Amino acid sequence: MKIYLNDFSNAPLRVRIAVALKKLEVEEIHLDLERDDWRRDCPEFASVNPQQMLPVLVDGRHTIHQSLAIIEYLEEKKPFPSLLPPDPAGRARVRSLALMIACDGQPLLNLRVRKYLASQFSPHGAETWVKHWMELGLREYEAFLVRDAAAGRYSHGDSPTLADVCLVPQMLMAQRFNIPTTAYRRATRVFEACMELPEFAAVVGAAAVVSSG
Amino acid sequence: MKIYLNDFSNAPLRVRIAVALKKLEVEEIHLDLERDDWRRDCPEFASVNPQQMLPVLVDGRHTIHQSLAIIEYLEEKKPFPSLLPPDPAGRARVRSLALMIACDGQPLLNLRVRKYLASQFSPHGAETWVKHWMELGLREYEAFLVRDAAAGRYSHGDSPTLADVCLVPQMLMAQRFNIPTTAYRRATRVFEACMELPEFAAVVGAAAVVSSG
Repeated sequence: MKIYLNDFSNAPLRVRIAVALKKLEVEEIHLDLERDDWRRDCPEFASVNPQQMLPVLVDGRHTIHQSLAIIEYLEEKKPFPSLLPPDPAGRARVRSLALMIACDGQPLLNLRVRKYLASQFSPHGAETWVKHWMELGLREYEAFLVRDAAAGRYSHGDSPTLADVCLVPQMLMAQRFNIPTTAYRRATRVFEACMELPEFAAVVGAAAVVSSG
Repeated sequence: MKIYLNDFSNAPLRVRIAVALKKLEVEEIHLDLERDDWRRDCPEFASVNPQQMLPVLVDGRHTIHQSLAIIEYLEEKKPFPSLLPPDPAGRARVRSLALMIACDGQPLLNLRVRKYLASQFSPHGAETWVKHWMELGLREYEAFLVRDAAAGRYSHGDSPTLADVCLVPQMLMAQRFNIPTTAYRRATRVFEACMELPEFAAVVGAAAVVSSG
């Protein structure tokens, strides 16, 4: 298997963390779609993903895009260690937390959205926009961690799940945009618990090194 | 089981279509969160979903939010008729198409996003915004229908899946915003094939009657 990804976006980071937690061997093809020359360096990518977004997983003749679809696929290919709880209600809770970030949170903060906002509506409005949606999303996520007895050391119980795989890149993005996260106490504790795991730390560290390099 | 939903939003419509296709009996609790008096009429809802978005499924002591998490839960509770293909790669393709709409498409067009855009950036900008993201999303979806041999009468093969459950409400929203969809020929054909099914037609018809009533 191989994955097309970059070192600084939210969705590729989710897949890299999932790959690390599941101890899979996957070849990484790093691609920066913000550079004009990506078509020269990686001409096949245009047909690999007509949406031209990262990440994309290639497994034999199958190409799979959208980070959560990729992670569900990896979960089916190699069920253990699992990123979803064993019970249907637990799986639903984890998926709903992941989707809160992957649907209502992160897509609003995407680079292509910030660029469009800047070009069409407000050249300097992206900061206000990101702060608003990031804070709302973290506040909502926090509310579920506070409400639900199922929350534990991690977003769901005491082992990391798909929810944490989505939360950690979102918290890192908040840090990158200088948005304080300490008010989200449970989410911060979950983030810290994740970062104590070598799988999260190694991937996040590698991404930080490359994106700052 | 019961579902909190409204009659005019995209995500509740996905769940209603899924419920119809899976021939489930679910009590519907209609709730209009745009009306100031919803807390009086339905005081329990604030704790049912701290995100205060629709839909929410309640099954015994479990409350599940986020439409795709609800549909995956229903899929696990009653696997047939299935909204996901039998093979992992097929399931991944269907989930990725669904997520293209549920993550990168619809959340940008949400009422709360349009309201924030209007209040903070441009009082009359929502129309331009919706047109831009709707057209981009449908163009990208169309590209996968054109590229993939797995596309058939419906988005994936010849029976309706989770992808169609997401596509149809998105196409209906395009119509509501007077955004032409005929350029997306494959998507339009899939939409029309879905609307020939009584499960789609009944739910969409009921939603249209109530929301215009």
